[in-house]
Amino acid sequence: MKLIIVRHGESEWNRLNLFTGWTDVDLSDQGKQEAQSAGQLLKKEGYDFDVCYTSYLKRAIHTLNLILGELDREWLPVKKSWLLNERHYGALQGLNKTETAEKFGEEQVKIWRRSYDITPPVLEEKDARNPRNQEQYRELDKSVVPLTESLKDTVARVIPFFEQTIKEDMKQGKRVIIAAHGNSIRALVKYFDGLTEEEIISVNIPTGIPLVYEFDNDFHVTGKYYLGDKDAVEAKIKNVANQASKDKK
Amino acid sequence: MKLIIVRHGESEWNRLNLFTGWTDVDLSDQGKQEAQSAGQLLKKEGYDFDVCYTSYLKRAIHTLNLILGELDREWLPVKKSWLLNERHYGALQGLNKTETAEKFGEEQVKIWRRSYDITPPVLEEKDARNPRNQEQYRELDKSVVPLTESLKDTVARVIPFFEQTIKEDMKQGKRVIIAAHGNSIRALVKYFDGLTEEEIISVNIPTGIPLVYEFDNDFHVTGKYYLGDKDAVEAKIKNVANQASKDKK
Repeated sequence: MKLIIVRHGESEWNRLNLFTGWTDVDLSDQGKQEAQSAGQLLKKEGYDFDVCYTSYLKRAIHTLNLILGELDREWLPVKKSWLLNERHYGALQGLNKTETAEKFGEEQVKIWRRSYDITPPVLEEKDARNPRNQEQYRELDKSVVPLTESLKDTVARVIPFFEQTIKEDMKQGKRVIIAAHGNSIRALVKYFDGLTEEEIISVNIPTGIPLVYEFDNDFHVTGKYYLGDKDAVEAKIKNVANQASKDKK
Repeated sequence: MKLIIVRHGESEWNRLNLFTGWTDVDLSDQGKQEAQSAGQLLKKEGYDFDVCYTSYLKRAIHTLNLILGELDREWLPVKKSWLLNERHYGALQGLNKTETAEKFGEEQVKIWRRSYDITPPVLEEKDARNPRNQEQYRELDKSVVPLTESLKDTVARVIPFFEQTIKEDMKQGKRVIIAAHGNSIRALVKYFDGLTEEEIISVNIPTGIPLVYEFDNDFHVTGKYYLGDKDAVEAKIKNVANQASKDKK
């Protein structure tokens, strides 16, 4: 069994260097190109799918749509779930990363970004950014909608969704593709690779590069690789890592 | 209860004056603008939805995606079904309408286009256009996949799908939008309005204009209207009617 995972490409807010989290910003033109390239690569390598998963956020939905366009598979079923959303970044969402460092101190920002189980400041109930007041999450019980998240919290929602929903499709022989976000993908990688809390923090997921996991019938990982030119993949991982370390300065 | 139905806008093949049917051609730039206008109109009038339906054909899927983009509702569930596809146009698909008239005679083409229960020539099994051999319909039992259709045949698949699936969502209080095709929408209009076979043939559905049906709890139609400026709607209906009558020449 194979599972293909793609992290969305550059968003409008990546360009502006803002904390994004659940803010529903679109892909930049470069991000759209990254998604199309991912689709072309999957097509070239002969990949096909039966069911697609993505988050409630348009940068992931559009990434998936663009991939399906390249594959001529827009008629495939697409299941959207907020459980695949990016890590919620609490009250930091929408703040400029440099200004945040000035306000809270570089060390504190580093802790929020690099720790496994420490959450950024909680959104207040009346905050316009509070997802409990947003149409997008109106069908959910308010108590399950986060006001901030650590990576641990993200793992705690992504993995049960994989286990209970995505895995069930795979068990039925369905070929699955997931278009998601840096931290919801980190959650899966931690789980599949059996990484420690320290190890997952230093894993960087390249944008727009299909990540292939192969499993045996007991769902043990038997293979893991990125599609495409190795040097290009390495360069992209380094780029993401550099971006993260630049943010920390 | 309200149900909103939108016919996709101009496709690439409309421009080329080819019989389209199940051929999976994309919207033209004008068709994309029509879809965006439909979305803007729905937004202006305060419409919102809980679930969306469309066909397996990208001109309808893209119409829906563009509408959801305008409404900022791309996270809504979208259910795609081949049962909402355009009428299958058999061996005429891909043929130029003028050439078809020359080949089969104007009278015969008129019969295929204007009769309720007469089918265009059947596609041969080995024809590349045969949907039974296409990936898009690979999950279906070949016996249910048509090689040609009359409008009657289209009605016979659309109405059970409405009854068994869409109506069930509406009964649960869900607000539904359907993005579909001239003839799959005609099937619904015939059913909702109780039209005869003769009457439905002369009904023209304007492209990209949201059609609103209102129902009481027993699913009797209590209201029916197009959104937007009345003159613009009339002009568009006339345009579709003129196009059809031009095709028949």
